[in-house]
Amino acid sequence: QIDHFGFDENLTFQQRYLIADQHWKKDNGPILFYTGNEGDITWFCNNTGFMWDVAEELSAMLVFAEHRYYGESLPFGNESFSDSKHLNYLTSEQALADFAVLIEYLKENIVGARFSPVIAIGGSYGGMLAAWLRMKYPHVVVGALAASAPIWQFGDLVPCGTYFSIVTNDFRKSGKGCSESIRNSWNAINHLSSTDAGLQWLSSTFHLCSPLKTSQDAAILKSWLSDTWVNLAMVDYPYKADFLQPLPAWPIQVVCKFLTDPSLPDKQLLQNIFQAVNVYYNYSGEASCFDMSQTATKNLGQMGWYYQACTEMVMPMCTDGVNDMFEPQKWDFDALSEECFKLWGVRPRPSWILSLYGGKNISSHSNIIFSNGGLDPWSAGGVMQNISDSLVAIVIPDGAHHLDLRGRHPCDPPSVRQARALETGYMRRWVQAATRGL
Amino acid sequence: QIDHFGFDENLTFQQRYLIADQHWKKDNGPILFYTGNEGDITWFCNNTGFMWDVAEELSAMLVFAEHRYYGESLPFGNESFSDSKHLNYLTSEQALADFAVLIEYLKENIVGARFSPVIAIGGSYGGMLAAWLRMKYPHVVVGALAASAPIWQFGDLVPCGTYFSIVTNDFRKSGKGCSESIRNSWNAINHLSSTDAGLQWLSSTFHLCSPLKTSQDAAILKSWLSDTWVNLAMVDYPYKADFLQPLPAWPIQVVCKFLTDPSLPDKQLLQNIFQAVNVYYNYSGEASCFDMSQTATKNLGQMGWYYQACTEMVMPMCTDGVNDMFEPQKWDFDALSEECFKLWGVRPRPSWILSLYGGKNISSHSNIIFSNGGLDPWSAGGVMQNISDSLVAIVIPDGAHHLDLRGRHPCDPPSVRQARALETGYMRRWVQAATRGL
Repeated sequence: QIDHFGFDENLTFQQRYLIADQHWKKDNGPILFYTGNEGDITWFCNNTGFMWDVAEELSAMLVFAEHRYYGESLPFGNESFSDSKHLNYLTSEQALADFAVLIEYLKENIVGARFSPVIAIGGSYGGMLAAWLRMKYPHVVVGALAASAPIWQFGDLVPCGTYFSIVTNDFRKSGKGCSESIRNSWNAINHLSSTDAGLQWLSSTFHLCSPLKTSQDAAILKSWLSDTWVNLAMVDYPYKADFLQPLPAWPIQVVCKFLTDPSLPDKQLLQNIFQAVNVYYNYSGEASCFDMSQTATKNLGQMGWYYQACTEMVMPMCTDGVNDMFEPQKWDFDALSEECFKLWGVRPRPSWILSLYGGKNISSHSNIIFSNGGLDPWSAGGVMQNISDSLVAIVIPDGAHHLDLRGRHPCDPPSVRQARALETGYMRRWVQAATRGL
Repeated sequence: QIDHFGFDENLTFQQRYLIADQHWKKDNGPILFYTGNEGDITWFCNNTGFMWDVAEELSAMLVFAEHRYYGESLPFGNESFSDSKHLNYLTSEQALADFAVLIEYLKENIVGARFSPVIAIGGSYGGMLAAWLRMKYPHVVVGALAASAPIWQFGDLVPCGTYFSIVTNDFRKSGKGCSESIRNSWNAINHLSSTDAGLQWLSSTFHLCSPLKTSQDAAILKSWLSDTWVNLAMVDYPYKADFLQPLPAWPIQVVCKFLTDPSLPDKQLLQNIFQAVNVYYNYSGEASCFDMSQTATKNLGQMGWYYQACTEMVMPMCTDGVNDMFEPQKWDFDALSEECFKLWGVRPRPSWILSLYGGKNISSHSNIIFSNGGLDPWSAGGVMQNISDSLVAIVIPDGAHHLDLRGRHPCDPPSVRQARALETGYMRRWVQAATRGL
C-alpha cells in the first residue's frame, strides 16, 4: 500500500525483501527481521554478518526488508523523486507500516511461520526503525535490537555539539597532533581560497574532479572534508573493511600518521590533509580524481535521506571549534527550512518525531536493546544507560558505528564480543518467552 | 496539522476543545482528557458526567477534544466532505495524532500543567481512541478508560452475530412475547408491502414523513426498525435520560409493554410495533411524522462515520433469525465495498485496523481499563476479561452503552457504582505512580 494512512491514494507498490532460511527451524522457529534503512537492502544484507551468525545459533530465519524509496522499492518507479507529491509517502511511519504488514504477510504465507516470534534488528536509522517498530507494533515483533540508533538526536534532547566532539576525540586519541592538524586546516583553506592561485592550488592538491572557482567554493571543500572525518569516525573498525569505503584496520590511526604536526605552514599542512583523505577515498588506489558530491558508498540513497532530513528527521548538529576540531557553526533551523522549501517545497516539522515516538519518555515500552559504540559519533544521540529491565543499553567502548552488527572477526575487541553475547542472550530469552505457550 | 503523516499538505485547521478547571489542583494535578468521537464535542461533554464527578475526587482538569471532521472541527470547512481528497485525513491515526499534539500543547501552555499526568477517557469509538491513544502514545497518557469500546469488532476476532443476539436478549428479558413480536414483525411487513394498499397502510400506520412507494422501500422501513431496536439496547438506562433520544427509565421495558402478543395478525402486530417505536422517537410527544433517515440525535456526525466505516472501521455484523430476532442477513463485505466505492470513491481495507492496533494481541500494553455493559450490544466486540494486571476488564451486567461514563444518579444499579469506584481507583493509582517522582 503506497499510503497506509489514507484511502484516497489506493495504489500499491512492490517492496523488495530478501530471505535466508537455511538455518531456520521450520516449526515456528524465530525470524530475525532487518528493518531496512536508507539504502539498497542487498548492501545492508551483506554488511550485517551478526544476523547470519545468530541465525545459526537460534535456528532463525533471516528477512531483510528494503525501506520504501530506496534500492528497488520505489513506490512510483522513476517518478518517485520527481516532486513533493510523489515523495509524500516517504516517512518513517509508512516504512514501519510496510514492515508490520510484511511480517504479517510472511507469517501467514510461509508454512511453519504462523507462530514464529519475530525480532526486529537494524542499525543507524534502521536501528531507530527497529526500536520504533517494537514501540508502535509490539504485537508484530517481540523485541528489537537497535544498533547505533540515535533516537534522541532530535529537538533539544541532547546537546547539538556532542556528535562532533566524539569525532574529534577519535582523532585526538589516534595520533599526536591529529585533531589539532585538522582544526588548523580550516584557516589554511580560508587563506588559500582568497586568491585564484590559491583556489587552483587547492583544486589540484586535493585532486578535485570539479575545480574550485570562487572563494565561496571553499565551503564545499570544507564541508566535504568535514564529512570525511565524520565518516571515518563512523567506520573506525578494528580490521580492514568496506562499509562506506574500502579501508584499512583502524583507519583513523592510518589517517593520523599524516597529521602529526599541526604547526606546519598552510600548504604543507594541507598536503598532509590530502594524504589523510586519500586514505579514505583511495585506499584501493583506483581514484583518478575526487568527486566532492559523494562521500560514501552509492548504496546509500542520498536523495531520499535528504528529503527525510527535510521533513521528519531533523537532527540538530553544531560545532564550536573548542570542544571539537571543526569550524564553529551554530545549528540554524531556519536556513534548513528555507533550503528544504527551495529543494522540495516542504518544510521540516522538527517536533513531530518527538510527539510521535516519545522523545526520552519511552519507559513504558519493553524488549529493546540499544547498543552504541564509544567511537561512534551517533552514540551522542543514543540511549547509553538502561531505562528499565527490558529497555537496556549496551555500550561498546572500542566500537564504531554498529560494529556489533558485523560478522564475527578475529580482530574483534572483547567489548564487541561481549555485546554480541549479551544481545544474543536477550534475543534467546524473548524467543523463549514468546514460544512458551506453543 | 491537517496531515500529520505527510509533508505535501502543510495546511492546519482549528480543532475545538473544551476545558473545565474549577476542581483542578494547579500544581501538576491530573488531566482527564476525553478523546472525542464521531460527534459534536459539547454533546459528549454534556453526557459524560462521570468525568465531572471524578474531577472533584481527583482534583483534575477536564479537557474534551473534538474529533476532526465532526462538530466544528472541520479541516476544510464546508468542503470537508466534498470528495475523497478532502476526506483523506479522516482516520483514527490522524485523530490520535491530533490528541497527542493537543495534550503536549496544553501541558506546555497551561501554567502548572507541565508535569500533569493525563488520563484518556472515551466511550464507544471514543473508547477505542482512548485505548489506542495509550497504546500508540504511552508517553502522552499514563492510562486510559475505554468505556464500551468494541476494539475487537473487526475482522474475525469475534462472531459477527453476537451483537444482534445481545440486542435480542435485552428484549427477551424485558417482557414476555417482546422479542418474538419483533421477530414476527418482519414477515408482517413483507406481506403488507407486497401491495400498494399495504404500503399505504404501513406509511400511515408508522407516521412516515416520506411514504413507502414500492415493495423495495420495505427494506428501508425494516432497516429503520432494526436500527431503532439496536439503539434502544444501547440506551437502556435505568433512569429517564436523553442520549440518542429523550427516553423513560428502562425504555425497553416500556417498549415491550406494547409487544406482549407475538401471535396477533399482521396489522395488529404492526400497530403495536408502531406504539413501541413511538416510545423511542416520540417520548416528548412532539414528533408529527417520522424521518427514517434519522435514528438518533443529530449531534452524531452520520456522514463522517459512514466514511470511516467505508475505510478503516469495518465491523462485520450478521443475523440468523434464530439466535436473534432479526431477519437473517449474512455479512457481505463485497456489497459494502461496492457501496463505499460508489459513494466516496474509496474501498475499505478491513485488515488494516488489525495490523495497526494488534487485534487480540495487545498484552504488551498497560494501564487500560476496558469497561462494558452486559446490556450493550457493543460488548460483543469488547474486552470482557482481564488480559493482564494492568489491562483490566470491568463488566457491568445491568449496564447499557457506557452507562459508567454518565454522572452519578440515585437509580444507578450497584454494578455501575462498583465499576465507577474501581475505575476511579485505577486512575488514582496511575496518577500517584506518575507523580511519585515529582
